[in-house]
Amino acid sequence: SRSIDLAVIPGDGIGQEVVAEGLKVLSAVLPQDVKLETKEYDFGAQRYHATGETLTDADLDALKQHDAILLGAIGDPSVPSGVLERGFLLKLRFAFDHHVNLRPSKLLPGVATPLAGQPQIDFIVVREGTEGPYTGNGGTIRKGTEHEVATEVSVNTAFGVERVVRDAFARAQARPRKKLTLVHKNNVLTFAGHLWTNIFNKVAEEYPEVTTEYIHVDAATIFLVTQPERFDVIVTDNLFGDIITDLAAAVSGGIGVAASGNINPSGEFPSMFEPVHGSAPDIAGQGKADPTATVLSVALLLRHLGLEAEAARIEEAVAADLAERVGNPARSTSEIGDALAVRVAG
Amino acid sequence: SRSIDLAVIPGDGIGQEVVAEGLKVLSAVLPQDVKLETKEYDFGAQRYHATGETLTDADLDALKQHDAILLGAIGDPSVPSGVLERGFLLKLRFAFDHHVNLRPSKLLPGVATPLAGQPQIDFIVVREGTEGPYTGNGGTIRKGTEHEVATEVSVNTAFGVERVVRDAFARAQARPRKKLTLVHKNNVLTFAGHLWTNIFNKVAEEYPEVTTEYIHVDAATIFLVTQPERFDVIVTDNLFGDIITDLAAAVSGGIGVAASGNINPSGEFPSMFEPVHGSAPDIAGQGKADPTATVLSVALLLRHLGLEAEAARIEEAVAADLAERVGNPARSTSEIGDALAVRVAG
Ligand SMILES: CC(C)[C@H](C(=O)O)[C@@H](O)C(=O)O
Ligand SMILES: CC(C)[C@H](C(=O)O)[C@@H](O)C(=O)O
Repeated sequence: SRSIDLAVIPGDGIGQEVVAEGLKVLSAVLPQDVKLETKEYDFGAQRYHATGETLTDADLDALKQHDAILLGAIGDPSVPSGVLERGFLLKLRFAFDHHVNLRPSKLLPGVATPLAGQPQIDFIVVREGTEGPYTGNGGTIRKGTEHEVATEVSVNTAFGVERVVRDAFARAQARPRKKLTLVHKNNVLTFAGHLWTNIFNKVAEEYPEVTTEYIHVDAATIFLVTQPERFDVIVTDNLFGDIITDLAAAVSGGIGVAASGNINPSGEFPSMFEPVHGSAPDIAGQGKADPTATVLSVALLLRHLGLEAEAARIEEAVAADLAERVGNPARSTSEIGDALAVRVAG
Repeated sequence: SRSIDLAVIPGDGIGQEVVAEGLKVLSAVLPQDVKLETKEYDFGAQRYHATGETLTDADLDALKQHDAILLGAIGDPSVPSGVLERGFLLKLRFAFDHHVNLRPSKLLPGVATPLAGQPQIDFIVVREGTEGPYTGNGGTIRKGTEHEVATEVSVNTAFGVERVVRDAFARAQARPRKKLTLVHKNNVLTFAGHLWTNIFNKVAEEYPEVTTEYIHVDAATIFLVTQPERFDVIVTDNLFGDIITDLAAAVSGGIGVAASGNINPSGEFPSMFEPVHGSAPDIAGQGKADPTATVLSVALLLRHLGLEAEAARIEEAVAADLAERVGNPARSTSEIGDALAVRVAG
């Protein structure tokens, strides 16, 4: 008999509410013979205010023991910008070498989009997760004076780029359309751009069935709103991936339904699954948050752990639930969770 | 009697065609007592192939003599990515200290947008033009090997940030809504982010009438498609500005109508005006390009030179022309230019 040992990090704001529904659906979908064990961790603003800690070495040791991590959201206006982001979210992604940040975008029938004409949207973004301008390299001199200089260094290595490009090619090869788009800005960021482009072109030779294209990040934002159907798999760096996946979420149903996985493909460290949205303190505690993004992140988690049938059942349940929303009154966070739990169990 | 001494750089691809129409409309709008002198320069792919030169010191000396520069587009697939961008476009922006990159977005009546429900869009982006990751700082070691490391350094100075933030506040103060949004990623790029945020907050104290807000660049892409009416003036760094202005163009009528100015506010160097679009080699020479973005760039040029009435006449002519396009057959590049020339003269 199998078991899943899950670390659960509800976090701040609506994180608590949406994670509860994610776990509800997870329990409902798992077959009898899969034992689910969960351990909750108290990371986030409260712990930071109480102890000054965001993520200690002991925390990392504890988290490392689990099979996977489910995260709600981290962040609160009471904490200065950057403290929890760098001190928790990014620290964890880097410590556990989450180099494949996977973000699917699929516009499901009946779901509202800001785009006219209900386009076909079904692509995944493979965002690099451990390099680029996210490394924290850089610094400030003469801080607070009129002579201040602040730098941010984007670090890109052949090792780091090649592994994520290979992951993206393998994903493209496994999809019906077999198309992979590299998004970068290689006409301006020529050092990093040439590294990305050369490795992309080199790996492409091993995947003759995969159609490839290159698009500058600025042009990619245009295509995401004018021709989103042109994308199948996109591979891109950490910062460009951050930007275009928010836009991708916006056009394919909003951040209420955008899931993500921070994946360590080798399995050396547990992977982490989280909704793309933040902690939304303005609506926290009111039962207004849509738990769908968290529930879809649970599906990504199950797929990562090899439970493909259960992942698919969750995705089907979400599709059916979204299709039924049109014209019906809004439901609370837990009502949506209940409905999804019933569907996946049924 | 006044005069305008204009440097004209048609450039590559459709650049030639659209600049011809820009000049046609410029000649038509100018009053009798303003003498227009133009000198054409041959920068771009052809000259690069013939001489290996992109922009020499002698070229810069020659360009410096003019009152302003009108550019069509530079870039061709026959030239490796980055050569003309870094060697011409960016070299010129840096050499002439074009630190205010001005990009207005206005969705005019009758103009198609990929967004549903025809939202109100009327904002300007003030993009920093001489710093950030565009400086060319960075480099590559162990190139072409599995140990390659490529870096890109975003350089941000108090001097550079403050002058563009001040420019943006002044523009916001002069607009009816008086709202300014800072777009950055200060939760991750904490060194540059804090510099931008601190200077923004400091200058804000001098503009009590201006409403300010801060939005992360990823979230900004969401708002640009879900609530574009929330923006009035946006100030942002060079790379974020590049990305969001393409998206802004896409939602407010497309790059066929997106104008820009690369402005040196002190007047020490001539400012350069250019459509946001590129050289579009796929449709070059076919009379298919829309010259509207270039014509609107001419309006920005006239406004910069103090010819406000003429600038406004061009903008009114464009609005009227766009409104009449609906349901009418497509016109060629020169037919659109002719129609606009007639309107501004009439
Ligand atoms: C909160 C922030 C650190 C994070 C990021 O920039 O990666 C978020 O925007 C995301 O996309 O997961
Ligand atoms: C061509 C390129 C160098 C340029 C930029 O990145 O600034 C273009 O995208 C623009 O927006 O003017």
